[in-house]
Amino acid sequence: MAELAGNCLIGQSGGPSAVNNASVAGIVSEALNHACIEEVYGALNGVVGILNEDLVDLAAESQQTIRGLRHTPGAALGSCRTKLKKPQDFERALEVFKAHNIRYYFHIGDGDAQENAAKIAELARGQGYELRVVGIPKTIDNDLPATDHCPGYGSAVKYIATTVKELAVDADATGAADLVTIVEVMGRNTGWLAAGASLAKRRDHPNDPPHLVYVPEIAFSPEKFVDDIQRILKREKHCVVVVGEGLVDKDGNYVAVETSDTAGAAQFGGVGEFLKEQVEARVGAKVRVARLGVAQRAAAHLASKTDADEAFLAGQAAVKAAVNGESEKMVTLVRGDGDHYTCETGLTTLAELAGNVKKLPREWLNEDGVSLNFQFYRYATPLIQGEVTVPFDNGLPSYTRLAKEPVDKSLPPYQA
Amino acid sequence: MAELAGNCLIGQSGGPSAVNNASVAGIVSEALNHACIEEVYGALNGVVGILNEDLVDLAAESQQTIRGLRHTPGAALGSCRTKLKKPQDFERALEVFKAHNIRYYFHIGDGDAQENAAKIAELARGQGYELRVVGIPKTIDNDLPATDHCPGYGSAVKYIATTVKELAVDADATGAADLVTIVEVMGRNTGWLAAGASLAKRRDHPNDPPHLVYVPEIAFSPEKFVDDIQRILKREKHCVVVVGEGLVDKDGNYVAVETSDTAGAAQFGGVGEFLKEQVEARVGAKVRVARLGVAQRAAAHLASKTDADEAFLAGQAAVKAAVNGESEKMVTLVRGDGDHYTCETGLTTLAELAGNVKKLPREWLNEDGVSLNFQFYRYATPLIQGEVTVPFDNGLPSYTRLAKEPVDKSLPPYQA
Repeated sequence: MAELAGNCLIGQSGGPSAVNNASVAGIVSEALNHACIEEVYGALNGVVGILNEDLVDLAAESQQTIRGLRHTPGAALGSCRTKLKKPQDFERALEVFKAHNIRYYFHIGDGDAQENAAKIAELARGQGYELRVVGIPKTIDNDLPATDHCPGYGSAVKYIATTVKELAVDADATGAADLVTIVEVMGRNTGWLAAGASLAKRRDHPNDPPHLVYVPEIAFSPEKFVDDIQRILKREKHCVVVVGEGLVDKDGNYVAVETSDTAGAAQFGGVGEFLKEQVEARVGAKVRVARLGVAQRAAAHLASKTDADEAFLAGQAAVKAAVNGESEKMVTLVRGDGDHYTCETGLTTLAELAGNVKKLPREWLNEDGVSLNFQFYRYATPLIQGEVTVPFDNGLPSYTRLAKEPVDKSLPPYQA
Repeated sequence: MAELAGNCLIGQSGGPSAVNNASVAGIVSEALNHACIEEVYGALNGVVGILNEDLVDLAAESQQTIRGLRHTPGAALGSCRTKLKKPQDFERALEVFKAHNIRYYFHIGDGDAQENAAKIAELARGQGYELRVVGIPKTIDNDLPATDHCPGYGSAVKYIATTVKELAVDADATGAADLVTIVEVMGRNTGWLAAGASLAKRRDHPNDPPHLVYVPEIAFSPEKFVDDIQRILKREKHCVVVVGEGLVDKDGNYVAVETSDTAGAAQFGGVGEFLKEQVEARVGAKVRVARLGVAQRAAAHLASKTDADEAFLAGQAAVKAAVNGESEKMVTLVRGDGDHYTCETGLTTLAELAGNVKKLPREWLNEDGVSLNFQFYRYATPLIQGEVTVPFDNGLPSYTRLAKEPVDKSLPPYQA
């Protein structure tokens, strides 16, 4: 494989996470090790910035700033949820790549980002423009196939399980009888995040909170729900329920969808309130609802060190793969076979990802459908280990901002 | 003052906090320094445990457990919201005190707890039973008079300001134009918690999020609210609003009250959703609502060290005061006059507290009524300094539980 000299570009897309920027740090750090990579650019707001030629010079950022990205939540370059559709969009993207001699494109994102990238790569190939495109997975939902888990998931679970533990301590402290605490977590189509709340249980204490976990993979039955609650309240002073926002009924319809956003995607939420009404009407217990919302993907102050380190590693691996000639691939996280958790990176083709969603395996739940078994614990426990050292300034976590030095534009503005 | 020999009893009441148990640790640690205090008991669920003679032996707990209370949220002895009213309740309480030779009673709680204690003390005095009663303040609402601030407030603010900062980073990352993030925080009658969110601003960056803070001390006007939002959205890419749950209109009516609980107290919440509807209908911007709920008083993983240390100190001070002959007093926190923040303890009479609420001073807000000025920052910034070192076990904070060894009962059960 001949060495490919040129510039590299980094883009971020989809919902931010606590460790999305750690992957940016991994890419930048590794890119500087390879002389064939000349400039290191970032696209502002992913493909939106590419279309508008809004690029910034990441090599001009201080090393302190790049290091700071390893503990900064959000998406330092800005994110987007744009799925390119029109042929002229892809042509424009490639035109921008050519204008800036972009030969390496690294995109951190979920499904849509990987699809955008695949199509730009295909177009470049058709035109004989040598471009290497490698994606880095990122989604707290943990629902991408081909990778053992996704960067962002471990930190979200660490935050969710900690919060569930703290809410349970508080509920226990009140001394109120028959108090039901309902915690609504994210998870559009899968129960990975809701299941993760189970890590709040101490080892060998299966009756610890959370007592009931409802995931989208199992059709919701209001009758069984009421029975479940009554069963727990007979045994425990109070009951903690965790529910994924994308819960569906036996016909596959969402139990609670709020509105659709401007892009037409369903905006979830409200399933906690729906369950509250069920408990109040059918059980007569007092209910508290906590809806963790965006905080669960932004709480870098409680990020998992394992997760943040793997996000960094995935960024490094993307650069190494591209320099070695790989393209149209996504980095994967590959778990070792041994008893002791280890994680290496692998590669998968972008084509394999398209449209596939990895569900929580049914056999990782107990027969009751509302609790997880040892297979899930064995899977998820290693992902939340270790704490990221976040510097505190004046009593609060200190997060990093990029200077975002603009790269001179050389093309006329784009009229979409 | 003659030395008073006998046993001591500790009770917790009201809403738990991140540092409520630190005061228990302070009392127990200090009590063991004084030979006149023979046994150290705890009442389960405050006055409820006193009436039912449900006492536990705190001196039997390991030192490790007592140390663990310094970073454990909730109320390790259990809390209650019971305000004693009937004369026979007070008589029963005193009967239990006499049966166990309780000569020192330390209660950690807000207004109702202090009033219960004052009446038990009065009854004891009338019967010539020597009893020393000293209260320790505790409320994240920070609305008790006579004390500079309340244990629990600093930690709640540290969590709220961190979360607001993280939500703002996330909103900024989305790249969405005209996004309004509304964060609903607690605060039944005062804006101390909502104001505290302002600490999320960096020094000398007045335009940092949160951009607008609505407190119950200032009558809410929907028209001004819409103007405020539009003003911010002209200047910023997105707008972060913090609102206290107890917001009132110009007639003094709550803007949003959900239900009343079994004790008839108003259950707040929903003001965030109310504001969301206003923005959607009148501004047309996209809105996200985060309702921090109980997590803001339970998030010991992010407690303020200053706050936790002061809660411990307040517990110690209560014991020292009682041993020195004080009674029917509450410990206060007294801020030093110097530029450098210092805090000592003082004492106030329980009578002075009854029914008084300390409001956020109007002059600590700017003229716009939606932002805080240097007087508030000078007040609140020291209270969130420092981080409590919480031990992590298997990826999650490790909180302590009391063994709760029961004290033998010697009275017949109480028929209320």
